[in-house]
Amino acid sequence: MESLTIVKIGGKIINDQKLLFFFLDSFQEIEGPKILVHGGGNVASQLSKKLGLKVNMHNGRRITDEKTLKIAVMTYAGLVNKKIVAMLHSLDCMAIGLSGADANIIQSHKRKVEDIDYGFVGDVDQVKAGLIKQFIDLNIVPVFCPITHDNQGQLFNTNADTIASKVAQAMSAFYNVNLKYCFEYNGVLENLDDPNSILKKVTRADADRYISAGVFADGMIPKIENAFDALENGARTVHICGINHVHEDEPGTQFIL
Amino acid sequence: MESLTIVKIGGKIINDQKLLFFFLDSFQEIEGPKILVHGGGNVASQLSKKLGLKVNMHNGRRITDEKTLKIAVMTYAGLVNKKIVAMLHSLDCMAIGLSGADANIIQSHKRKVEDIDYGFVGDVDQVKAGLIKQFIDLNIVPVFCPITHDNQGQLFNTNADTIASKVAQAMSAFYNVNLKYCFEYNGVLENLDDPNSILKKVTRADADRYISAGVFADGMIPKIENAFDALENGARTVHICGINHVHEDEPGTQFIL
Repeated sequence: MESLTIVKIGGKIINDQKLLFFFLDSFQEIEGPKILVHGGGNVASQLSKKLGLKVNMHNGRRITDEKTLKIAVMTYAGLVNKKIVAMLHSLDCMAIGLSGADANIIQSHKRKVEDIDYGFVGDVDQVKAGLIKQFIDLNIVPVFCPITHDNQGQLFNTNADTIASKVAQAMSAFYNVNLKYCFEYNGVLENLDDPNSILKKVTRADADRYISAGVFADGMIPKIENAFDALENGARTVHICGINHVHEDEPGTQFIL
Repeated sequence: MESLTIVKIGGKIINDQKLLFFFLDSFQEIEGPKILVHGGGNVASQLSKKLGLKVNMHNGRRITDEKTLKIAVMTYAGLVNKKIVAMLHSLDCMAIGLSGADANIIQSHKRKVEDIDYGFVGDVDQVKAGLIKQFIDLNIVPVFCPITHDNQGQLFNTNADTIASKVAQAMSAFYNVNLKYCFEYNGVLENLDDPNSILKKVTRADADRYISAGVFADGMIPKIENAFDALENGARTVHICGINHVHEDEPGTQFIL
């Protein structure tokens, strides 16, 4: 099977126009079929603040009420997605911006209310891998924003790390999928104070140990869950790496089962 | 050749959730291949106002500075486009939301500065009709927002009536194109005070006469220019009609050369 590279970028890259351009220039160098998944960055929070809306957080996770959803759709599917698409074209990379609602490509359902109601947050049900492949066959690079829908008229805010993992799993039907979570460090650090302490490989057992020891914390934990979820469900490789190494074969930290 | 229906909807329909739903329900009844082009409505102006930005107008046309462009991209390509796409899916209509930047599908250039600099306003150079046809061949309904780009990284605000006309012209290479400008009246009125005074047909000579007499004024004039531009460059029919008649063969007012 042919290889497919799926790259996810997060907030810190999106917030910095120069970093974003460096990243996209590195991204377009990736050979063969590729997909980009982006998060939201702080554009949504900034806009909420300007509009005087309260940002509602619970255990570090945002609660998405109706107004917050509107802002997420505006900034993620509008501003950030189209800016990235336009920049990629300026680098001779033919890109199409997509939300999960477009062609019902990523369908989700409202996250079930347990301890807490996260509001308009969607958990992914299915990814239309065949249609994504048709875009790739047209030499178009899909660029996904973290907005999905339920196919019944409701849009949802959806975690971009999860979207990257679910798209990787679905695309494994057609490709050898290499998934790369790309962030501001060159890999996962064993010691947050030492940027050179990059772990080359992390197994599930390693991850559990690092989580217990508090080395992996906060946003890294769901990222690691998504990484192993992808590996267990079809992805060939999963890495966490820095923006300048994304087009390399073995960048940063590799997760292994 | 097969028929293709292209429908453009404007602000008053987009601003009213109920009208929009009635329209989309009528739109999805259109048989055969179809395309939707939407304007922005007052969502952008409302957001500008909330953010304390001055709306800059010149002869009834908005001047798009950098902040206004950001708001246009957020609201047109984000909120309005994805809301329409999600609503269409709830009506069992498989839709994909597109800006001109997506897959470089509508490329434009910054409007030349003559008397006035309109800022980040794009005039359309080319429409990728072959790619639009490929979406249609996949049974997907393209939904265009009025944002384009120059393929060099710059996004532009672009008149939705013009996008509808240019897409109609380009698609004439593959289809018998029927273009419908859909608005709050059931057609073009000879007498604005009498909603029953719908003109059945308007020729270029009629239009010139009505413009001179002041019957056609303001936003109707560029709409009429776009209508005749489409007819002169390949569209088979052009109508202006109301939202409940859009799926009929001969709704409202027909423009004829």
